[in-house]
Amino acid sequence: MPKPGKKHQGKAPAPASEAGGRTSLSGAEYHQYLPALRFGLLDAQRALREAGVPVVIVVAGADAVKSDTVNALNSWMDPRGVMTHTFGPEFNPDPLRPHFAPFHEALPPRGSIALFCGSWYSPVGSGRIRRDISRARAKAELERIAFFEKMLTDAGVLIIKIWLHLDEESQRKRLKKLSSDPRTAWKVSADDWKRLDVYTRLATVRDDIFAATHTAHAPWVLIDATDDRYSHYMAGQAVLGGMTGRLTESAPTAEAVVVAEPRGEAPDRLSRADLGSKLSEEEYEDRMAAAQARLSRLSRLSYQARKAHVLVFEGWDAAGKGGTIRRLVEAIDARNVRVIPIAAPTPDELQRHYLWRFWRNVPRDGQTAIFDRSWYGRVLVERVEGFATEAEWRRAYDEINDFEENLVSHGTTVTKFWLHLSPEEQLRRFDDRSETPYKRHKVTSEDWRNREKWPAYHEAVNDVLDLTDRPKVAPWHVVPSEDKLFARVQVIETVVARMERALRG
Amino acid sequence: MPKPGKKHQGKAPAPASEAGGRTSLSGAEYHQYLPALRFGLLDAQRALREAGVPVVIVVAGADAVKSDTVNALNSWMDPRGVMTHTFGPEFNPDPLRPHFAPFHEALPPRGSIALFCGSWYSPVGSGRIRRDISRARAKAELERIAFFEKMLTDAGVLIIKIWLHLDEESQRKRLKKLSSDPRTAWKVSADDWKRLDVYTRLATVRDDIFAATHTAHAPWVLIDATDDRYSHYMAGQAVLGGMTGRLTESAPTAEAVVVAEPRGEAPDRLSRADLGSKLSEEEYEDRMAAAQARLSRLSRLSYQARKAHVLVFEGWDAAGKGGTIRRLVEAIDARNVRVIPIAAPTPDELQRHYLWRFWRNVPRDGQTAIFDRSWYGRVLVERVEGFATEAEWRRAYDEINDFEENLVSHGTTVTKFWLHLSPEEQLRRFDDRSETPYKRHKVTSEDWRNREKWPAYHEAVNDVLDLTDRPKVAPWHVVPSEDKLFARVQVIETVVARMERALRG
Repeated sequence: MPKPGKKHQGKAPAPASEAGGRTSLSGAEYHQYLPALRFGLLDAQRALREAGVPVVIVVAGADAVKSDTVNALNSWMDPRGVMTHTFGPEFNPDPLRPHFAPFHEALPPRGSIALFCGSWYSPVGSGRIRRDISRARAKAELERIAFFEKMLTDAGVLIIKIWLHLDEESQRKRLKKLSSDPRTAWKVSADDWKRLDVYTRLATVRDDIFAATHTAHAPWVLIDATDDRYSHYMAGQAVLGGMTGRLTESAPTAEAVVVAEPRGEAPDRLSRADLGSKLSEEEYEDRMAAAQARLSRLSRLSYQARKAHVLVFEGWDAAGKGGTIRRLVEAIDARNVRVIPIAAPTPDELQRHYLWRFWRNVPRDGQTAIFDRSWYGRVLVERVEGFATEAEWRRAYDEINDFEENLVSHGTTVTKFWLHLSPEEQLRRFDDRSETPYKRHKVTSEDWRNREKWPAYHEAVNDVLDLTDRPKVAPWHVVPSEDKLFARVQVIETVVARMERALRG
Repeated sequence: MPKPGKKHQGKAPAPASEAGGRTSLSGAEYHQYLPALRFGLLDAQRALREAGVPVVIVVAGADAVKSDTVNALNSWMDPRGVMTHTFGPEFNPDPLRPHFAPFHEALPPRGSIALFCGSWYSPVGSGRIRRDISRARAKAELERIAFFEKMLTDAGVLIIKIWLHLDEESQRKRLKKLSSDPRTAWKVSADDWKRLDVYTRLATVRDDIFAATHTAHAPWVLIDATDDRYSHYMAGQAVLGGMTGRLTESAPTAEAVVVAEPRGEAPDRLSRADLGSKLSEEEYEDRMAAAQARLSRLSRLSYQARKAHVLVFEGWDAAGKGGTIRRLVEAIDARNVRVIPIAAPTPDELQRHYLWRFWRNVPRDGQTAIFDRSWYGRVLVERVEGFATEAEWRRAYDEINDFEENLVSHGTTVTKFWLHLSPEEQLRRFDDRSETPYKRHKVTSEDWRNREKWPAYHEAVNDVLDLTDRPKVAPWHVVPSEDKLFARVQVIETVVARMERALRG
C-alpha cells in the first residue's frame, strides 16, 4: 500500500483521445466484455462488504454524460449496498450550513458504497468555469479537498474517482446524433447547445484539479466519454480496478503512517491555571445577571445577522459542565440554541467516520450549538482508553483542526472550554454527590476509574491545548472551576466577548 | 392499561387558578420539596431507560414561560438521556417538506427522552391565535395529531403533555415584576408587552386542543404558570407522574388492542391481473422512448412547479423492480431524483418507530423519491415472517394510510406499484439468474424461502390492495410483469399520467 499523504509519483492521466488511443467499443465487443465486468464488480462488492470497507465512487467531469454513467454503474452492482448522491454544480441543499456538511453526511457506512454523481469537486469546478472564484481560491479549496480525501482513506475508505472527458467537438457530434433520432432527441435541450464552450474551459479546470488531488491514495481515472459504450465500460473497469486493488493489497503497517504530532513535550498549561480564583455570592449574582442580559441580546442579534456559534465543553468529571451550560441556555431564546450531549457512539455511528455525527450537528446560520463533550473525545477518552489506535488519535489533531476551520471559514465561531479543577476538589464533589440522593447517579464507577487515570488525561489535555488552540480561529479557554461561581461567570463572559467580536467582524 | 384510542372519560382539566386552588410555592417549600422530586425523576428515568421505553414530553401553552420550564426539567434529569427540540410557532425548518417531518425525525429512540419545547401543537395553536386558519381546519389538524399520538403510544411511546396556563393579568404582573429588577429586566422585551392579548385568545385555542387531544393514552396536565417555583415543580411532578404511571401499569394484553382490519375476505385482486400482457420489442422501444421523453419534460416541469413525487415499488422477487426503476431514473435529471433501497433496518432504526426511516426520506418539493421496497414491508415481510406482532401489522394499515395522507395533503403525489408475476415465471427467472454468473447474487436462499411462502404473501398483498388502495389519494397499480417489456412501459406511462395530472391540478 502506498504511503498515505504521498503525492502520486506518476504523471496525471491524459485522455486516451489526446494520447491517440482507442475510445470506442462496438456493440458486439461491449456485449462480449460486459458479463465478466459485471461478475467481477458483484464479486468485489461482496468481498468489500464482508471486509467492512466503505467505498466512495466519485463521477466528475462532463455533466452531459455523468448521469448515464452513474446509471450504468448502478445497474451493474447490487443495489442493496449502493446509495447514489447527486450534487449539481449549483446545488446546495442548505446554504445556511458549511458547504462540506452534506458531503460528510452522505459518507457510506462500513461495507457500503456511496456513488457521487457530482461531488465536492462540483462547487470548485463550476466556480472556475463560471469564473466566480479566483484560481488562488480554487487552489485553497482543492487543498482542503485533498486533506478531506486523505482523512477518509486514512480511516479505511476506498475512494475511486472517475473523470469523464468530453471536448467541445465530441459533445457537438454527440448532440447531433442524439437529436437526429426521435427516440433520443428528448435528451437534448436548447441549453445543451448553448453550453458547448463549457467543455473547453472544463479541460483547464481539470488540470488544476488533477494537480492538487491526483494522489496515490485517491487517484483519478480519466475516461474519454465520446462513446457511451466505451466510457461506461471503462468506468466499470475503473471501479473494478479500485476495488480489487484494495482487496489484494497487504494491510497497512503502523510504520507507514507518518504523523508528526504530538511531540510529547507539550507545555503544562493545565497546571498554570489559577485554581484559587473565586467569586463572592454577591459578585456572582451581579456579574451573572449582567452577562446573561448581554448574552440574551447578543444571541438575538446573532440570529438576525445569521451568525452561528459552536461552543464546546470539555472538562474533568464533576467540573460543572452541566450547570454552566444551563446558565448559557436560559439566556438564549430556546429556538436558537441546541445542546448536544455526546455519549458513546451508537451502532450506526460506529459504522461511520468519527466526525460524521458532529458534522450532522453543525448549527445552521443564526443558531448556537452547545456540545456537552465533543469530537475531542477522539484525543481524550479514546486515546487514554485505547479505543482509538495511536495512529488514529495522532492524526486526529489535524483532522479536528481542519473540521473547525471548515466551520470558521463558513462564518461560524468556534469557542472551546476546558473546565479545570484539582483532583482534591473533584473528590469532594464525588463524595458530596454520593451523599445527595438526587445527585448520586452523577457518580458512576466509570468516574472513579477515570479518576485513577488523571495523569494520562492531564497529558492528553495538554496535548490538546498545544495542538488545537488557535486563538484567531478556534481558541481554547482553560477555566479554573475549583469555584463553580467563578467558572460560570468566566464562561458566560467569554461567550459574550466572542459573540460581540463576531458581530463586529 | 387503558384501551388505545379511547377518549378520556373524565373532564378536561381546568387551571387551578380558575378552580380556586393554590398556584404558588414559597422558596422554603420549593427547596424542601425539590430533592424528593429530583430523586424520583432520576430513578424513573433510569428505570425507563432499562425498560427501553421512549419518552416524549411536550411543553405547550404560554410562550413566555415554556423555555424556563424546559430548562428546569432538563436540569433535574440525566442529560445523557435527554434531547431537547424547540419548535417556535413560526418555526418551520424546511417549508419544502411536509410539516410533520421534523417532528417524526425528532422522535426518541428506545430508552431516551425527547423534550419538546413547542411541538406539533405549535402550528395549529399559533395559526388559531393569529386567525390564519379556520376553526374547521384546526379541528382536522387536531384529529391528525390525535392519530399521531395514538400511533406513538400504540408503539410503546410514553407521551407526557404539559400545558402552561398564564392569563393576561398574570402575565402583566409577571412582566412588571421582571422589569422592576435590574437582574431580570433583560428577560422582558417590548414585544412581550405588545403581545399581552395573546394570552386571552390562547385559552380559547386550548379548549379546542383539549377537546380533541386530551386522551387516556396521552392526557394533558394543565399547570398554572403565574409563579415560577410552583409551575416548575408541578411540571416536574407531571413528568414524574407520567413516568411512574408507566412503570407501575401492567403490560398491555393482546385483547386490549382493538383493530378492525383486515377482514380476512379481501377480494383476490392479484389473481385478476392479466399475466398474458406482453409487448413486441419494436412496440416496446417506441413507447418507452416516447414515455421517457415525456417523463424527462414532466420531471423538469415538476421541479419548476415544486411538485414532489413519491413512487413506491413492491413486487415478487425477480419481478423486475430494478430494471424498471432504472428506466425511470435515466429519464429524470439526476439532481431531482433519488432511489431509496429499503433493506432490513439498521440497529439505530430498530430503536425507533418503523415509519421513522421513511419520514427521513420524504422528498423535498420538486424532487422525486423512488422507494425500492417501502413501509409496506410492515404488512408484507414483517407480517408473513412474524417480525411484527399481529396487533402491530393490523394497525399498520391505518398508520400507513395516514402517513401517505400527510404527504398528499402537503402536495406530494404518491403512486404505488405491485409488480406481479406467476410462480412459474419467477422460477424460470431464478433458474436463469443462477446460470448467469453476474446475476447469481440476485438469488439468495432467502428468495427460495420467500417462494415457499407464496400463498401467505399472496393473501398479504391482497389485504394491502384492499386496505390501502385509495385511487384519489395514493393509488396502487398492479402491473402484470410476466413480460418485462410490458411492465416497464406500463409503469413509466402510469408515472407520466400521474405527473401530468399533478401538474394540471
